[in-house]
Amino acid sequence: MRIDERSVADLRPMTIDTDYLMHPEGSVLISVGNTKVICTASIDERVPPFMRGQGKGWITAEYSMLPRATGQRNIRESSKGKIAGRTMEIQRLIGRALRSVVNLDALGERTVWIDCDVIQADGGTRTASITGAFVAMTLAIAKLAEEKSLPLFPVKDYLAAISVGMVEEHGVVLDLNYAEDSAALVDMNMVMTGAGEFVELQGTGEEATFTHQQLLDMIAVSDQGLKSIMKAQKEALGEIARKLPALGEVNPI
Amino acid sequence: MRIDERSVADLRPMTIDTDYLMHPEGSVLISVGNTKVICTASIDERVPPFMRGQGKGWITAEYSMLPRATGQRNIRESSKGKIAGRTMEIQRLIGRALRSVVNLDALGERTVWIDCDVIQADGGTRTASITGAFVAMTLAIAKLAEEKSLPLFPVKDYLAAISVGMVEEHGVVLDLNYAEDSAALVDMNMVMTGAGEFVELQGTGEEATFTHQQLLDMIAVSDQGLKSIMKAQKEALGEIARKLPALGEVNPI
Amino acid sequence: MRIDERSVADLRPMTIDTDYLMHPEGSVLISVGNTKVICTASIDERVPPFMRGQGKGWITAEYSMLPRATGQRNIRESSKGKIAGRTMEIQRLIGRALRSVVNLDALGERTVWIDCDVIQADGGTRTASITGAFVAMTLAIAKLAEEKSLPLFPVKDYLAAISVGMVEEHGVVLDLNYAEDSAALVDMNMVMTGAGEFVELQGTGEEATFTHQQLLDMIAVSDQGLKSIMKAQKEALGEIARKLPALGEVNPI
Amino acid sequence: MRIDERSVADLRPMTIDTDYLMHPEGSVLISVGNTKVICTASIDERVPPFMRGQGKGWITAEYSMLPRATGQRNIRESSKGKIAGRTMEIQRLIGRALRSVVNLDALGERTVWIDCDVIQADGGTRTASITGAFVAMTLAIAKLAEEKSLPLFPVKDYLAAISVGMVEEHGVVLDLNYAEDSAALVDMNMVMTGAGEFVELQGTGEEATFTHQQLLDMIAVSDQGLKSIMKAQKEALGEIARKLPALGEVNPI
Amino acid sequence: MRIDERSVADLRPMTIDTDYLMHPEGSVLISVGNTKVICTASIDERVPPFMRGQGKGWITAEYSMLPRATGQRNIRESSKGKIAGRTMEIQRLIGRALRSVVNLDALGERTVWIDCDVIQADGGTRTASITGAFVAMTLAIAKLAEEKSLPLFPVKDYLAAISVGMVEEHGVVLDLNYAEDSAALVDMNMVMTGAGEFVELQGTGEEATFTHQQLLDMIAVSDQGLKSIMKAQKEALGEIARKLPALGEVNPI
Amino acid sequence: MRIDERSVADLRPMTIDTDYLMHPEGSVLISVGNTKVICTASIDERVPPFMRGQGKGWITAEYSMLPRATGQRNIRESSKGKIAGRTMEIQRLIGRALRSVVNLDALGERTVWIDCDVIQADGGTRTASITGAFVAMTLAIAKLAEEKSLPLFPVKDYLAAISVGMVEEHGVVLDLNYAEDSAALVDMNMVMTGAGEFVELQGTGEEATFTHQQLLDMIAVSDQGLKSIMKAQKEALGEIARKLPALGEVNPI
Repeated sequence: MRIDERSVADLRPMTIDTDYLMHPEGSVLISVGNTKVICTASIDERVPPFMRGQGKGWITAEYSMLPRATGQRNIRESSKGKIAGRTMEIQRLIGRALRSVVNLDALGERTVWIDCDVIQADGGTRTASITGAFVAMTLAIAKLAEEKSLPLFPVKDYLAAISVGMVEEHGVVLDLNYAEDSAALVDMNMVMTGAGEFVELQGTGEEATFTHQQLLDMIAVSDQGLKSIMKAQKEALGEIARKLPALGEVNPI
Repeated sequence: MRIDERSVADLRPMTIDTDYLMHPEGSVLISVGNTKVICTASIDERVPPFMRGQGKGWITAEYSMLPRATGQRNIRESSKGKIAGRTMEIQRLIGRALRSVVNLDALGERTVWIDCDVIQADGGTRTASITGAFVAMTLAIAKLAEEKSLPLFPVKDYLAAISVGMVEEHGVVLDLNYAEDSAALVDMNMVMTGAGEFVELQGTGEEATFTHQQLLDMIAVSDQGLKSIMKAQKEALGEIARKLPALGEVNPI
Repeated sequence: MRIDERSVADLRPMTIDTDYLMHPEGSVLISVGNTKVICTASIDERVPPFMRGQGKGWITAEYSMLPRATGQRNIRESSKGKIAGRTMEIQRLIGRALRSVVNLDALGERTVWIDCDVIQADGGTRTASITGAFVAMTLAIAKLAEEKSLPLFPVKDYLAAISVGMVEEHGVVLDLNYAEDSAALVDMNMVMTGAGEFVELQGTGEEATFTHQQLLDMIAVSDQGLKSIMKAQKEALGEIARKLPALGEVNPI
Repeated sequence: MRIDERSVADLRPMTIDTDYLMHPEGSVLISVGNTKVICTASIDERVPPFMRGQGKGWITAEYSMLPRATGQRNIRESSKGKIAGRTMEIQRLIGRALRSVVNLDALGERTVWIDCDVIQADGGTRTASITGAFVAMTLAIAKLAEEKSLPLFPVKDYLAAISVGMVEEHGVVLDLNYAEDSAALVDMNMVMTGAGEFVELQGTGEEATFTHQQLLDMIAVSDQGLKSIMKAQKEALGEIARKLPALGEVNPI
Repeated sequence: MRIDERSVADLRPMTIDTDYLMHPEGSVLISVGNTKVICTASIDERVPPFMRGQGKGWITAEYSMLPRATGQRNIRESSKGKIAGRTMEIQRLIGRALRSVVNLDALGERTVWIDCDVIQADGGTRTASITGAFVAMTLAIAKLAEEKSLPLFPVKDYLAAISVGMVEEHGVVLDLNYAEDSAALVDMNMVMTGAGEFVELQGTGEEATFTHQQLLDMIAVSDQGLKSIMKAQKEALGEIARKLPALGEVNPI
Repeated sequence: MRIDERSVADLRPMTIDTDYLMHPEGSVLISVGNTKVICTASIDERVPPFMRGQGKGWITAEYSMLPRATGQRNIRESSKGKIAGRTMEIQRLIGRALRSVVNLDALGERTVWIDCDVIQADGGTRTASITGAFVAMTLAIAKLAEEKSLPLFPVKDYLAAISVGMVEEHGVVLDLNYAEDSAALVDMNMVMTGAGEFVELQGTGEEATFTHQQLLDMIAVSDQGLKSIMKAQKEALGEIARKLPALGEVNPI
């Protein structure tokens, strides 16, 4: 039994509140255990300079934490005047992951801005951000598709993320909270599509290493978790889920 | 009748959810109409260099908006690498106002960090921030006073803020929403104590001017509004309100 | 009697040297007691991006202090790489105040850049800046109006500013010098037009509060002071003053 | 056959020139095909503030490219005044990877600064940096171990990195050059120890996805490549290689 | 005859007003033709970190221009958030030059901060800054020497600077104004001591070159000019000049 | 005899490897004793905004050091977020010097970007940069002249630089290494054309001064050294040297 009485392959309780804010084209508040992230998607009828004139769209993401999302107050990046390496890594990951399930040609020459603002952090903020941002983005694109009568729905498949790791006491554990994450020997983040293919796989030994077999074990546990998470995304999307492919059985490995 | 069916001296509906986040010593979510601000108060057992060794405490505030708190997405100040003049003005105002009702000697050599993060904006974000931050700060200081057995409760009186202005159609109006604020000829913010004294009074003709009589009218309407707001603060504070002076009748003018 | 032998409602000696520098379209050196500010006005035949194509002009201001304008040397903002909150507040105030007395349509699509550089500081630098900048701006606009044969003179009325405050020993005092300002309980800045209407009113309790009656007293004393200051502006402008409305009696309150 | 006549599992020619510069404690010039990186290791007898007083050492890395290491000139990060997200990601990866094979307690309270400066880029600069930096670091630590008579040699095992990917024409290919990398559907970087365990595994679908089987194929090909690379590291280290564990057979998968 | 009716070896009229400001330990307003610079010297009882504990003093300089010191308004360096290369070059030159005539041991462990702020520019601002800063520094050090009863007067000799150049029409000309400087083929700045020795000699062909003979001619003309300038410095210093060596005849060349 | 057994007027051994890198239009590795600099020249078919539409070209230079080019590791300017004054001075000098021997009209409306990256430093990095950059630039322009069939070869003459100084023990010494430079009383850099004319002459007393005669001595020694350096440049350029004027005898002084 883990600290919060979960078994090693259990997810934390997850909720996704849609249309959480009045202004953005798409928005959700996603809660994963005590981790809470506001994800918004904004449609901008322009693309960055390097994309202009190609008739293709773009998706870009920013990630931030409120100063007191954490146990100790963090200095704001705006006060420091620069963005931390960790923040950059996360926001690049979110943007890259979302682009992998969007048909950028079908989106047309416009940008979807994703903003993930962590209100409260208890581990897994980057994977919660991806999972929530997928829903916010799909809501915004559905609204756009309707207004502009896009001939093809630009979102091709579901996308969700989860963390998995290895801790001294329990071996492989799924969906680590902050206490577990701090003590983990290995930390892995998996981003997967509804069809069960990998988009990103990032495994890191934290001043430790891991074997080939341990890698396979971590992947197996994550696969199961992502299946549940995508069901929650489907429910949150309601009617809009019909525009996505049916959520197949995740491929067994 | 105003756009949202209020009369000129009506406040918008206001709620103050206390202990909104798990980590900060004090936190609230304040909603004023559609304006929503997360206010947190963090206790830091140090003071800034210019205050060291005086045995006195300090209170400082930061203010920010989520990029999509507004109708158009705003670029993050962390991305721009600098803080806008408007942000600086507001955070200086919040800090200064809160310090006016705190006995800094009684607080002891520590800092209360206030963070006001606007989740959704519809006018009056700076006054909602002050009103909410007062509650978050008082909650944090109450916890501190208990833990450290402070001999004197450092918060001396209530503190709340409201906006008032003049619009073409209705003259003096209280608690402007965004649409009203954009069209206002005169914009005034008042910060007042429970005892009915001014802490700040900032009136600005927006490419317009105002007379002495109009100033008096705006003050009169605000006084009434602040009285109601402080009652809501008292309720939100619950038991802790007993440590504050009784909320007197606001002095008539 | 105050530190410098003034009575409570006395202004400090004030001089306004016009055409102080050879390059700017308008320039003054304003001295208010020991406070000295160089104010320049530069005409730029462009407007900021957000104003383009509207046929209207813009007025913007920057404020700075020489490092040794003060008793202790200040680090330059260019060395620190960022502008202090206080500086931003002041330069936003100066620009906003000047715009309230200029007909921006009559100015045409051009910008007046105001620069206020404090050479020596002894209290009241922001109000001296506004008072001096008004003269520099009017000189520059008069030159422009002549050269471009503008059909309507864009400056609509006089504009001047003064500080007033409350000190322990004397109660309400006008035009505070640095020593008085440092010890003041309440600090207020008033910006008024020649017609006696308010443009800005900013009163701040410095870790103190003030009553309604005290507000009225401060306003009354300032009204008188501003009347004298505008007379000095009129003299400094010489012939150009004829393009402005006659300097009426300031409305009694 | 690939563009440069290699088969899919072939590495590019690799050379490691040790003691390339006169000043650093350890330095190499590593060439992998046309990619050339200067890696230096500097010993600093201090640790960062968050590590002080723990008796442990630290390893940190910086990565940069000469402006004309690439086909198009890049603007220097010093001119832009900020470090790109990609640079941050890479330098965090290098530092983390090296720390996984160093006994930080045995290193003592000092920092090894790694600098990887890309002189010429043709794909695989981050993996060449890790491979070269391992040698530079081991040279520097060997010198330190000698001078300070460290009781235990702090480097625990070999460490090397390689890229692998999937391209339309050939499927899985090892050690991609720039032309291949630009066209790759999947891009993966593997960092491994001499004992054949993973330190990092980062696989990214570039607007594409990959299956479980493809992941296994990429890992298998990389394992073989890393074996050869570590042999080259061993040769470059000469006598110093004796302080490291024998370079075992990489575990088959 | 030159544009302003000077002959080729004539200086422009020069005045040095001492004790121009009330706060700094030493201050002057130096006017050289239409060029006007406020030079201040501030004593700081600390030295920079790299000088601590050596018992020696330091002299450092900063240089800036008001935005409208020039014909076209310049953007403030504080607004741009960085200091231009030209500014850095000038302020390094001023500091280095002043240090060459000061006995830093005799100064004791303290810093003299020099600030040169150009109020109005018409060529030769860097040389006017050095000439004026020498006087401001000597005034400040004289005050310090008195207050602290320094056993040895730290200023060893006079120091002044002048520009010389070559223009198409007149060949070698001394003390160029802005119009001449803009058209000059060669631009040289000389900094010399009272004893007639060089401290700095910086000659630059502006997209042109100069011969050995032309160099000698420029030096000869400057020598004469500097002699006059130092006489003016001596007069400005009044009684304090007695603490300096007698102003010898400048060595003929 | 000097530290490294040279006589006072001896240069250090110098080599210039051309086409050192594969991507830039021109590149060299220049070694002067232990000082090694990679100089590249990149052709950009645009000019900076202030040059547009004039049909003329531009040459601009950047200079940097690897962090461990020196005995102590230097913090990267990209990490500090700003460029040091020394760096700015050097890169402005390099650009200005190169422009003096190029016919910018003949170059056409394009920019030559020069990058000088010091790989290893042992004194004289700025002069080695100029000498090497001249060769890299000439190689790039020769390629351009060929491809674009420029009617006139834009490089007008050779350009090289050397340092000279005065040290306590030996008096005037040529081409100082780091140990000599650190102890020098006077430090001078000379930049000269193939025709023997000065482009730049910068002499600095390092908290010391120098006489007229010493200036002449330093110039004489440098003249001889530059003659040898230009011969090496000619050899490095090979066939391309034919496009330059014959390397005349340097004018005796």
